[in-house]
Amino acid sequence: MAALRGKLIVGQSGGPTAVINATLAGVIQEALRHEAVTGIYGMRHGVEGLLREELIDLGAESTETIELLKHTPSAALGSCRHKLSDADYERLLQMLRAHGIRYFLYIGGNDSADTAHRLAVLAARKNYELRVIGLPKTVDNDLVEMDHCPGHPSVARWLAVSVRDAGLDTEAIGVVDTVKVIETMGRDTGWITAATALARTHEDAAPHLIYLPERPLRREQFLGDVERVFRRLGHVVVAVCEGQKDERGAYLSASTKSVDVDRFGHPQLGGVAAVLCDLITTELKIKARFDKPGTIQRVSGALRSSVDVEEAVQVGQAGVKHAVAGKSGQMVTIVREGDHPYRCRTDLVSLERVANKVRPFPGEFIAPSGHDVTQAYLDYIRPLIGGELPPYARLRNVAVPKTTSVPGA
Amino acid sequence: MAALRGKLIVGQSGGPTAVINATLAGVIQEALRHEAVTGIYGMRHGVEGLLREELIDLGAESTETIELLKHTPSAALGSCRHKLSDADYERLLQMLRAHGIRYFLYIGGNDSADTAHRLAVLAARKNYELRVIGLPKTVDNDLVEMDHCPGHPSVARWLAVSVRDAGLDTEAIGVVDTVKVIETMGRDTGWITAATALARTHEDAAPHLIYLPERPLRREQFLGDVERVFRRLGHVVVAVCEGQKDERGAYLSASTKSVDVDRFGHPQLGGVAAVLCDLITTELKIKARFDKPGTIQRVSGALRSSVDVEEAVQVGQAGVKHAVAGKSGQMVTIVREGDHPYRCRTDLVSLERVANKVRPFPGEFIAPSGHDVTQAYLDYIRPLIGGELPPYARLRNVAVPKTTSVPGA
Repeated sequence: MAALRGKLIVGQSGGPTAVINATLAGVIQEALRHEAVTGIYGMRHGVEGLLREELIDLGAESTETIELLKHTPSAALGSCRHKLSDADYERLLQMLRAHGIRYFLYIGGNDSADTAHRLAVLAARKNYELRVIGLPKTVDNDLVEMDHCPGHPSVARWLAVSVRDAGLDTEAIGVVDTVKVIETMGRDTGWITAATALARTHEDAAPHLIYLPERPLRREQFLGDVERVFRRLGHVVVAVCEGQKDERGAYLSASTKSVDVDRFGHPQLGGVAAVLCDLITTELKIKARFDKPGTIQRVSGALRSSVDVEEAVQVGQAGVKHAVAGKSGQMVTIVREGDHPYRCRTDLVSLERVANKVRPFPGEFIAPSGHDVTQAYLDYIRPLIGGELPPYARLRNVAVPKTTSVPGA
Repeated sequence: MAALRGKLIVGQSGGPTAVINATLAGVIQEALRHEAVTGIYGMRHGVEGLLREELIDLGAESTETIELLKHTPSAALGSCRHKLSDADYERLLQMLRAHGIRYFLYIGGNDSADTAHRLAVLAARKNYELRVIGLPKTVDNDLVEMDHCPGHPSVARWLAVSVRDAGLDTEAIGVVDTVKVIETMGRDTGWITAATALARTHEDAAPHLIYLPERPLRREQFLGDVERVFRRLGHVVVAVCEGQKDERGAYLSASTKSVDVDRFGHPQLGGVAAVLCDLITTELKIKARFDKPGTIQRVSGALRSSVDVEEAVQVGQAGVKHAVAGKSGQMVTIVREGDHPYRCRTDLVSLERVANKVRPFPGEFIAPSGHDVTQAYLDYIRPLIGGELPPYARLRNVAVPKTTSVPGA
């Protein structure tokens, strides 16, 4: 069978990450190796750019720029979150035809998988030979059929390092700033919040309480949890997910302004930490403040996982290889082959199986208390973050014997 | 003159930083070189620990631990924010006498300088020969008589890198998340917020608007500023200080709960970004979200400035040298000697001149618009952050010619 000759187009969709450009670099570098690929285009802002015919020629970029993409956070092509109409899909296909594009690679999450799937179905129905491949990307780590998603290991490393430091801060100044609540991303799943557990380097280290949206946060129980840690250590660090719900299944905090609901109908989350700080201050009369690193955790290039960068490149390369080999309507997956040493390979799954589905944080990764993770989770996540955290000094704190000459001492 | 023989005690006070332990390491390593210093004690949680006689023997720590302190963020001895009574000062002096302590080194900001000053005055009045030296530390960079304060260059580097990444995130996904407000620390001065300007690597890069508490934020003008950038670029990144005030001189957001006012009467600040996001969403009908990295920015060890680490060690060493040489009632300062290449040396200033004073962000560093910094500021801060930011790829974005075969294209 002769290879399908034509141009390749690649786009980025959804929330940018620290490594989505590494996948883009993998796509471009691999595409350059195949004669069947007669040109490499990029969509500006995903399918929105393709609809508006805002395409760029990635063949015009230098090899240095493409290599540097591996170390450049955020989405260099621009990203989008666009819900397409039936007419939009028709138009996408017209654009692809008009430009002689036969390879469509789309880097994104479950919304993007749905978009790619529908396009593949339409192309088949219209007898336009198009190879559609989805490339996984989401910090949320919530795509089904994957061991993990590119982007997630880097946010896990960012939180491991940053929460460790923020925890040392509270340990040092807890006499003044007693409770710290750290609000993480993650939407409706606890994957990101759970990663804060990697910050712990000893038993009493932060975070002391980890709330995951897979379990409701009960107000009275929460206050009891916080008070118990406070009595034991004199300070408390709490990690909580932006999408945490209460016992009635309602978000602890969610904006209801219409402008804050995105085009897929997801409400804009945020504010959980502020709500919990207010609760602690009001009910327990102890001071609480919060850190909400927000998009910095998702996109920061400062603490990328080396494993994540490497796999993100591989995912891009694999997508092009599979497309040229004739696959379509598939998403590249990551399959773990072993932990000692850690080994992963890529595979494929149909886009339809991934589209619009969410993988919750598994029950076996949640501690019975409901506010911690299990060893099984730590065994899962540790190999992904690219090595141990840097060592810190910990004083032995050898007490000086007390004098007897100062009254009351 | 024979050197004063006796023990040395060191404490850490105020908000922990990325390099306050580097100063501690400098103190210990230098103290070990002087025969006059007969022991090295640490106060647990600053003067609170001395009052309670919670002292540790730093001589019992290994050389490896002490060296590793240079790379360990937060305050290893524990910190405090304790307002002392007259009786407390008497008790501190009794403790020092009882333990044969002749050298008192206190790492902190302007509150701590006041504490050290009062102790020095009391010791002199009571004819107890005590050498009191303050060692500067504050991320806020607001101590008078200094070129800059250890701790600040590291938060500046952290924000430069993190805001650059968060800005790329908004640039990529601005079609959805249009305005991002990044709330920085800094209390009543703009030093920390100003450092976000280092994130810019090209003219239209984030942050687009920088509000400093030395200038009031006027609601109508602010909305106009945001809308103007939005119309030009389609997205906006705003940096704002936690202590930003409005035209009436009122904090844009400050907690008034009594538990949230610290022992020096400073209100617990925070919430400015949430207030501004609400204003933007309500008035301009465009979506706004905020990042509030909070204590992570202040203490993170991930993006320490190498210049900062080195100077923090030097400040500790200088303090011990001066104390052993007979100085007292002084704070170590950093004096800039040149920029090409950057050179600084340490000096001394009386603690009284530093105590309780605040150095505002200077007018010549604030752009006429009131929402940006000047080149003079950038020339000031650049040498301090320990080298350029890592290079990122930026696509040339060579447009693909539009086809004429798609209707409406």
